[in-house]
Amino acid sequence: MNAVKATYLIHDSKLDLAKKAEGIALGLTIGSWTDLPQLEQEQLKKHKGEVISIEELAQDSRIDDYLGKNVKRGLVTISYPAANFSQDFPAILTTVFGKLSLDGEIKLMDLEFSNEIKSSFPGPSFGIEGIRSKVGVYDRPLLMSIFKGVIGRDLSYLKDQLRQQVLGGVDLVKDDEILFDNPLIPFEERVKSGKAVLKDVFEKTGHRALYAVNLSGKTFELLDKAKRAKELGAEVLLFNVFAYGLDVLQSLVEAKIELPIMAHPAVSGALTPSEFYGIHNPLLLGKLLRYAGADFSLFPSPYGSVAIKREEALGIANELTKDDQFNKTIPVPSAGIHPGLVPLLIRDFGKDSIINAGGGVHGHPDGVIAGGRAFRAAIEAVLEGRTLQEAAKNDDALQKAINLWGTVEVTQ
Amino acid sequence: MNAVKATYLIHDSKLDLAKKAEGIALGLTIGSWTDLPQLEQEQLKKHKGEVISIEELAQDSRIDDYLGKNVKRGLVTISYPAANFSQDFPAILTTVFGKLSLDGEIKLMDLEFSNEIKSSFPGPSFGIEGIRSKVGVYDRPLLMSIFKGVIGRDLSYLKDQLRQQVLGGVDLVKDDEILFDNPLIPFEERVKSGKAVLKDVFEKTGHRALYAVNLSGKTFELLDKAKRAKELGAEVLLFNVFAYGLDVLQSLVEAKIELPIMAHPAVSGALTPSEFYGIHNPLLLGKLLRYAGADFSLFPSPYGSVAIKREEALGIANELTKDDQFNKTIPVPSAGIHPGLVPLLIRDFGKDSIINAGGGVHGHPDGVIAGGRAFRAAIEAVLEGRTLQEAAKNDDALQKAINLWGTVEVTQ
Repeated sequence: MNAVKATYLIHDSKLDLAKKAEGIALGLTIGSWTDLPQLEQEQLKKHKGEVISIEELAQDSRIDDYLGKNVKRGLVTISYPAANFSQDFPAILTTVFGKLSLDGEIKLMDLEFSNEIKSSFPGPSFGIEGIRSKVGVYDRPLLMSIFKGVIGRDLSYLKDQLRQQVLGGVDLVKDDEILFDNPLIPFEERVKSGKAVLKDVFEKTGHRALYAVNLSGKTFELLDKAKRAKELGAEVLLFNVFAYGLDVLQSLVEAKIELPIMAHPAVSGALTPSEFYGIHNPLLLGKLLRYAGADFSLFPSPYGSVAIKREEALGIANELTKDDQFNKTIPVPSAGIHPGLVPLLIRDFGKDSIINAGGGVHGHPDGVIAGGRAFRAAIEAVLEGRTLQEAAKNDDALQKAINLWGTVEVTQ
Repeated sequence: MNAVKATYLIHDSKLDLAKKAEGIALGLTIGSWTDLPQLEQEQLKKHKGEVISIEELAQDSRIDDYLGKNVKRGLVTISYPAANFSQDFPAILTTVFGKLSLDGEIKLMDLEFSNEIKSSFPGPSFGIEGIRSKVGVYDRPLLMSIFKGVIGRDLSYLKDQLRQQVLGGVDLVKDDEILFDNPLIPFEERVKSGKAVLKDVFEKTGHRALYAVNLSGKTFELLDKAKRAKELGAEVLLFNVFAYGLDVLQSLVEAKIELPIMAHPAVSGALTPSEFYGIHNPLLLGKLLRYAGADFSLFPSPYGSVAIKREEALGIANELTKDDQFNKTIPVPSAGIHPGLVPLLIRDFGKDSIINAGGGVHGHPDGVIAGGRAFRAAIEAVLEGRTLQEAAKNDDALQKAINLWGTVEVTQ
């Protein structure tokens, strides 16, 4: 059937999941059914929501105590016919989790789209292969670092920091997501200067890297700004999707600006962490970002300073990369990453992922270049099956990083 | 100081709110401070975040038990200099609650904007006065009703339902928020037909009413669609703000389409209900919608089928209507409203609000027209200081409504 199937985690204080599910399926589609005349039932049948499944979960006294009431927990899947909505995220989200998001303890866990609806989404324009071909690296995780402390600084500071990062062997450098257009370092100047620095480093060292510039400002001006960035030589756009809207991302992709888009999870934490409310991480930062066309998805790793559960992080990565009709989105587990975490990250997210560090590059005792090198050495060691301790014997930068931040043994 | 002050509710497992606050103030602005040379401190001073206040709240064992750890609870206010961000919601939200939204148990409770930043927001174009002058009603709460069960129906069904609702004395009729553009009842046809029905009723009865049509579809096409609706005679636009983004609402307002915009709370429940995460209702459905320019804000009442806490509903209404440089947004407490709740609603939200009913109009034993009349009689009774029971003696429609749904004594 041409439909969207939504799966919810429900904590129902009326203790009747079947009734709750039926109420949702009707209430969010045609409103009523049994009291309709036969003729109207025929007419409305193809618009009627259907309860697909109800899986009751064990009651949990910790939850009952917290909520101050007994609740029945369950996973409920409901199918919403495509005839009811236009094929865009705002209409779909409003249908499956509009009014319903306000209706007690209910969390949107997954959406499953019919092939017909799926084909209306663009998916990533570049995907993992496209990103790899831009940097010319095919056989290892990419290394990304983030500008640090650039607010209030001028263009020469930014250029210097970019150069240092790239000289350490970093493949991508991204703007801080809180760096917007400002008179000291305007967007267009950043694009031009970034390009010049990267070109210079490439000519001198042969190392090719990309700079992701933060596409920011008013929604209706983003498209022109993105096109202008492309003209000026930008190679990647960073975008705070959740400060705008999923459809804005999708619309930028559909406008064929021919630049990979890096989705930042800023503000998404207002939607994802509660077990009772909101939207499940693998759906929001995984499936929906991929369908909308993000080429990169940043999300908190299970290991750093700002962490999410390992199963959620793996769930995100799985949605970004599993077999599907779309290009793959490259997973970027982030926040508090240092070289000692590289074995864990590669075990969990594989070669087709990005190791993304801020303080783990900038905070290296011997400086930013050494910070990048320590990561590259860690990546190389893991791919060659050596422990970091072993590799560090011949690599001073890695040794100092491990001394400072430690490392973690990987157990399978 | 030209800044945004953000107040957060924090549950801190490290039990040190002062340290947490300082980390936020620096981490979301210039990154570091004490280890900077004097000269750089001078240069960066005006970009530095500042902790304004820390109010520790009582520990709560129910919360500690649920979280499985001891946490210190507190309200922390931090000031972010305007020099750090462009004056738009995506930049402001990313600054004050971007990465931070992912950082443990933290909820954004309020934002306070300097006058300079405030003046960059439009506020409502029409506001309560503008809406009142459109319907010509100044001395009572307005009455709104909602189409019911229109998915899968054709234009004649819609027209008939609109006529019935308006004949009952309803001032505004809004589209169901899950009704999108579809071949059976396309957007433009709805605008034209709605206008014709309302004109006809006005000519025959002298009763003027407005129809709020759902502005839906792709983000970058909304503006043209809104302008087209205006040309065709639309009088109000319904808009699912949170399925798009606050800046999309603001940008529609700034484009001066000259139609009042009714903000629907669909999807906002993914952001607001948790006590640990997300965004506080009075901020999101109150202050931010008003600043962005919503003329109406719908939100769950404290009394209906989908309810929020009374203090949150009152908090929303207060933000929508308190003295400020902007026009007032009219509060529309919604969901499960029947005539028996009118005394409570008027006590809580005053004359300058909208009584908004779906089933409470459509489900009246004598039909839709009687449903509207019962509400109008209830409103009249309350304004005249009579109880509904008293008024119902001379009003059959009200009597039957009370018999079906009951009523609530108002205690001050």
